[in-house]
Amino acid sequence: MGSDAGVSLFQVRVYYEDTDHGGVVYHANYLRFMERARTEMLREKGYELDVLEQDPGIFFVVRRAYLDFRAPARFNDLLQIKSVITRKTPVRMNFQQDISAKEKLLCSGEIEVVCLEVKTFRPHALPAELLQAFPLRVHP
Amino acid sequence: MGSDAGVSLFQVRVYYEDTDHGGVVYHANYLRFMERARTEMLREKGYELDVLEQDPGIFFVVRRAYLDFRAPARFNDLLQIKSVITRKTPVRMNFQQDISAKEKLLCSGEIEVVCLEVKTFRPHALPAELLQAFPLRVHP
Amino acid sequence: MGSDAGVSLFQVRVYYEDTDHGGVVYHANYLRFMERARTEMLREKGYELDVLEQDPGIFFVVRRAYLDFRAPARFNDLLQIKSVITRKTPVRMNFQQDISAKEKLLCSGEIEVVCLEVKTFRPHALPAELLQAFPLRVHP
Amino acid sequence: MGSDAGVSLFQVRVYYEDTDHGGVVYHANYLRFMERARTEMLREKGYELDVLEQDPGIFFVVRRAYLDFRAPARFNDLLQIKSVITRKTPVRMNFQQDISAKEKLLCSGEIEVVCLEVKTFRPHALPAELLQAFPLRVHP
Repeated sequence: MGSDAGVSLFQVRVYYEDTDHGGVVYHANYLRFMERARTEMLREKGYELDVLEQDPGIFFVVRRAYLDFRAPARFNDLLQIKSVITRKTPVRMNFQQDISAKEKLLCSGEIEVVCLEVKTFRPHALPAELLQAFPLRVHP
Repeated sequence: MGSDAGVSLFQVRVYYEDTDHGGVVYHANYLRFMERARTEMLREKGYELDVLEQDPGIFFVVRRAYLDFRAPARFNDLLQIKSVITRKTPVRMNFQQDISAKEKLLCSGEIEVVCLEVKTFRPHALPAELLQAFPLRVHP
Repeated sequence: MGSDAGVSLFQVRVYYEDTDHGGVVYHANYLRFMERARTEMLREKGYELDVLEQDPGIFFVVRRAYLDFRAPARFNDLLQIKSVITRKTPVRMNFQQDISAKEKLLCSGEIEVVCLEVKTFRPHALPAELLQAFPLRVHP
Repeated sequence: MGSDAGVSLFQVRVYYEDTDHGGVVYHANYLRFMERARTEMLREKGYELDVLEQDPGIFFVVRRAYLDFRAPARFNDLLQIKSVITRKTPVRMNFQQDISAKEKLLCSGEIEVVCLEVKTFRPHALPAELLQAFPLRVHP
């Protein structure tokens, strides 16, 4: 937790609920962890998703995701998630997110997020200050 | 699947997503399975939850739940859920739901559900025909 | 986070993944939150569940749960979970767990947990020091 | 449900548990739905995952996933999942999986699955008959 020069760090503990019968984290749950990290990345800069829903009436949806599962996370692991923004347009942001435990990379994701208007579910421009608050990191 | 004299039967397959590191179904997921069964119990009588949300603008929330976990369900099990209504008032229904596999009872639940108005989140009377469509079964 | 005289406190942030179509936390997820809090309650006293699985080869399962859903938790809420142990025997512990947001009680649970041997799934005595590390709180 | 010339069809109902605060299916849950469909695709040909775990002692993990979220699935939707295998090697299979509702494509996924040995978590050759039971479909 903490952010520096466009790199946001967040920790997630692996609980029983996150694991599956194979003894490791269920693959879909990495998407959950990555979203928690993106939420906290916004919060660090003062943007709360529930406030944004009210004013200016926007929310984010995942438009594309590419996940590379390299090694399994295990029960009780304390995961580190490193998130950077690699690309942004007025309505969309691309995140590179790396999940590791004990310095070992377990899962990396490229997540494309689009900003939608709550009322219409149609693309809506991100607030300019929000876009500017997050510098790009092309080479994380 | 199928209903007779107030008893509704529904099947759930246990997938990887439902299990945990202990090799069995994660305990919270029985509540999910029971809700699926209640949803199908209503559908059998012609009540679709998304339609009820629009007209007359109601939905259901779980108000109380008592769960007795007797034996674990395992990966790939085909579960049988038997649901009956044991009590009903104009705004609430109590379900007894038994989950078993191969004739063995694994988990039983007593679930109290309240009908709320979508707009206000306040209790709202159930449609009279809906209430009448579901006979009580005091002794399941 | 933090424990005093048998009362353990833990915080949970509500993310998108925890909510449902009704705009509030999905009811089954309170069981997840309560398990996270019990896991952290043990960790505070130095007991790691993955270590206990190896030595002495035990784990915990929920045997019974009673949940009282009083008011909904909402997206982005920061929940407080207060956990106390109300009863214990050599193989089982009963927890009272209260989840609240902004001082308002949202959901309370009575959770009975049994200690099982990993190899046999049969009840197994809790380590004596572990049992002693957790004082009872009959009147939380 | 049913399979023809390498195309496997499976249906998933969207329940409350699958939706989020945005009123639509939570994005990570499409990975769950796709895994259910792959499991049933194997079952159609007589392969049960719990049996394969015992003999010859193998299981499958997702190694890579690419997801294209085109439109949201909604509460109570009945989803159709079309799955084909687009590539296979002795230890891995690539699936193309399309999820739609009312003939409209909502989410498509390219999922690479690797066969591992249960004991070692290392890649293990798929049973030859299993590999042959699934014809490729390069152009789904």
